[in-house]
Amino acid sequence: MKGNIVVGQSGGPTAVINASVAGVYSAAKKLGADKVYGMVHGIEGFLQDKLVDLDGYLADPTAIEILKRTPSAFLGSCRFKMPKIEGHEDVYEKVFEIMEKHDISTLFYAGGNDSMDTVKMLSDYAAAHGKKQTFMGVPKTIDNDLPVTDHCPGYGSAAKYIAASMKEIIRDNESFGAEKPTICIVEIMGRHAGWLTAAAALSKGDDCSGPDAIYLPEVTFDVDKFMEKVNKLAATKHSVVIAVSEGVALADGRFVCELGDASSFVDAFGHKQLSGCAKTLADMVAAKTGLKTRAIEFSTLQRAASHLSSLTDVNEAFQSGADAVKAANEGKTGMMITLNRVSSDPYEISTSPYDIHAIANVERHIPAEWITEDGCGLNEKYIEYARPLIMGELQPLFVDGLPRHLVMKELFD
Amino acid sequence: MKGNIVVGQSGGPTAVINASVAGVYSAAKKLGADKVYGMVHGIEGFLQDKLVDLDGYLADPTAIEILKRTPSAFLGSCRFKMPKIEGHEDVYEKVFEIMEKHDISTLFYAGGNDSMDTVKMLSDYAAAHGKKQTFMGVPKTIDNDLPVTDHCPGYGSAAKYIAASMKEIIRDNESFGAEKPTICIVEIMGRHAGWLTAAAALSKGDDCSGPDAIYLPEVTFDVDKFMEKVNKLAATKHSVVIAVSEGVALADGRFVCELGDASSFVDAFGHKQLSGCAKTLADMVAAKTGLKTRAIEFSTLQRAASHLSSLTDVNEAFQSGADAVKAANEGKTGMMITLNRVSSDPYEISTSPYDIHAIANVERHIPAEWITEDGCGLNEKYIEYARPLIMGELQPLFVDGLPRHLVMKELFD
Repeated sequence: MKGNIVVGQSGGPTAVINASVAGVYSAAKKLGADKVYGMVHGIEGFLQDKLVDLDGYLADPTAIEILKRTPSAFLGSCRFKMPKIEGHEDVYEKVFEIMEKHDISTLFYAGGNDSMDTVKMLSDYAAAHGKKQTFMGVPKTIDNDLPVTDHCPGYGSAAKYIAASMKEIIRDNESFGAEKPTICIVEIMGRHAGWLTAAAALSKGDDCSGPDAIYLPEVTFDVDKFMEKVNKLAATKHSVVIAVSEGVALADGRFVCELGDASSFVDAFGHKQLSGCAKTLADMVAAKTGLKTRAIEFSTLQRAASHLSSLTDVNEAFQSGADAVKAANEGKTGMMITLNRVSSDPYEISTSPYDIHAIANVERHIPAEWITEDGCGLNEKYIEYARPLIMGELQPLFVDGLPRHLVMKELFD
Repeated sequence: MKGNIVVGQSGGPTAVINASVAGVYSAAKKLGADKVYGMVHGIEGFLQDKLVDLDGYLADPTAIEILKRTPSAFLGSCRFKMPKIEGHEDVYEKVFEIMEKHDISTLFYAGGNDSMDTVKMLSDYAAAHGKKQTFMGVPKTIDNDLPVTDHCPGYGSAAKYIAASMKEIIRDNESFGAEKPTICIVEIMGRHAGWLTAAAALSKGDDCSGPDAIYLPEVTFDVDKFMEKVNKLAATKHSVVIAVSEGVALADGRFVCELGDASSFVDAFGHKQLSGCAKTLADMVAAKTGLKTRAIEFSTLQRAASHLSSLTDVNEAFQSGADAVKAANEGKTGMMITLNRVSSDPYEISTSPYDIHAIANVERHIPAEWITEDGCGLNEKYIEYARPLIMGELQPLFVDGLPRHLVMKELFD
């Protein structure tokens, strides 16, 4: 591998996106790359020529191990979307100008749907304008909604955190309830696809009954059926815990969190404020049943909990980065590394580069046949798919009682 | 130790209250107790004669190890407060009747303020009525607000979870902010005492700047000063993360979460609903600055996260249970085990039984001299106090990718 390369991170961070940077760095160095640059705050920082020579941070193998245990985007992230080419050629030319300036042959970009769109746009521009630079995507998203690939690095760790935390919440909730059950509603990320919320189903086992119902954005939410379900559960159980995706919506398209009359939700500062959907549903259940309710949101905790990473996920994130480098070294461009399932039992995957055009801007949902007939649960097909992804642990390095992270000081300039 | 004993759990669960039950069981068996009963749902269940012979669950030493790794109340909890004696002698007599029936010599009760009140009332009744049965308290509360004792089992693990999660949240928040900072406000439990919120300060270290401000219920909340602080931080930083106790209140006594005009918070179902204080403050900051804000609540996660327990805390919880048994065996009654700090560096504690009358219904707050001059931070004195409490880890036993728990089936009857 001649010359230099650059790697960037984009979109919502995950617990293992830094493992992908570690994979890119390690593989590139092994293949003889001179410099491996990191973009500060993704393509947004790159356009301002904000680069860091990663040798300054990652030359020591110990640092690579700490980086694998560091959540969020070590290099900084952004939500910058490349504009359409026509009329914005200057933005594209700027990218190539900076690549030329630093003798960068390949740009690696780790991210989800929007980030893969950046890879597509840049490689399309290069092809149309006879540029020699190449572009590779490294899959990353807790949302797990990229197509073609069996799953996305980042999902396994988020799923492990969600399932483990759900188990702890269920344990907490069922310690009360001697007289009446508390209805606990847990909101999980995922506006359009229910992969993260589905992970709540993994908490079920010999030592846990799992959530009593799971509401996914793939299934139309019916308030009456929901209340019927809650009433039935409350009548027979000491504890009721329900998982709900932030993206659940009614037949008319309104999100559940918009259920309230907008005017009645105006806050003390005169602004319309939406409660989360768990809070909305918990308030509704409390009002209609008189039972004690509790709303919990995992919020960003679910995408940053590297203290509970899945080792499978960390390793696959690293491998995706490393394999993107290998593919670029073989002359590939405009592609993303996909994970292909060879077998679920024993779990085995292969990786391969795949045309980015089939991936960018396509969203993958949970197959209908993995959802239980009543629409509020996942069946064995999902468990068979997801269980291997949460297996294994990468014990943090604890310093002063807390997990140690690697920090790039340029993020704070 | 002759005859039988009974142990119960009460109040909000913690990650290590089961380790105290393990300590009671193990020590009692070692001292020759015949049966060790568990109360199902604390004194509330005990009054209904709901007892379980713990040999059925804990005779195997492996089970003891799993129990130490199981969050929440294994035996079930309750929020039952003993009524005043006068006019309710029947309730008290019922307790002694059930103790007689099962040949129970001592009742051990693990809990916080209300639970220690139960121990006090029962031992007072016994003394006044010439009963031979004895009563011992085992300290437990994430709130850390019991007096006399240096700290309470449960606090160290909650503090470790809060500090580790805070670090992950800060990491997540600072990965963005290339242009403008996101203001992230994290709500932590503690209505009257700020011990849990203070734990956010432990996240500060070589690899983390820690929260930018910490608001405790011990300090009167001033909205103008808060906004001034936020504006100042937002003007200079790429990321702003603020920790706030659920109990912060204004000079007029109103909680921050009540800041909005009540009528404007009426929900879609016609009920007055309070947002959390983090949500209230985040909405206020968004309205006043136009910056992106995020509100996060740790909710019950912070008291149930045994996957990230402090080993120091687990061991002290176990020891408190075991030492309560030893004290009872020496004829003590109406006492709680306290942890006494011998030294912070190296960390060393001793334990001793202490008169319950000095403990029940007394609430301990953070000393004023541990709070920074500006009122929104903790100084080195707090760190020196709290750091040893979060040291060490007890790795969960992972089965199918998730921490294994021990479950008592009688909780579900």
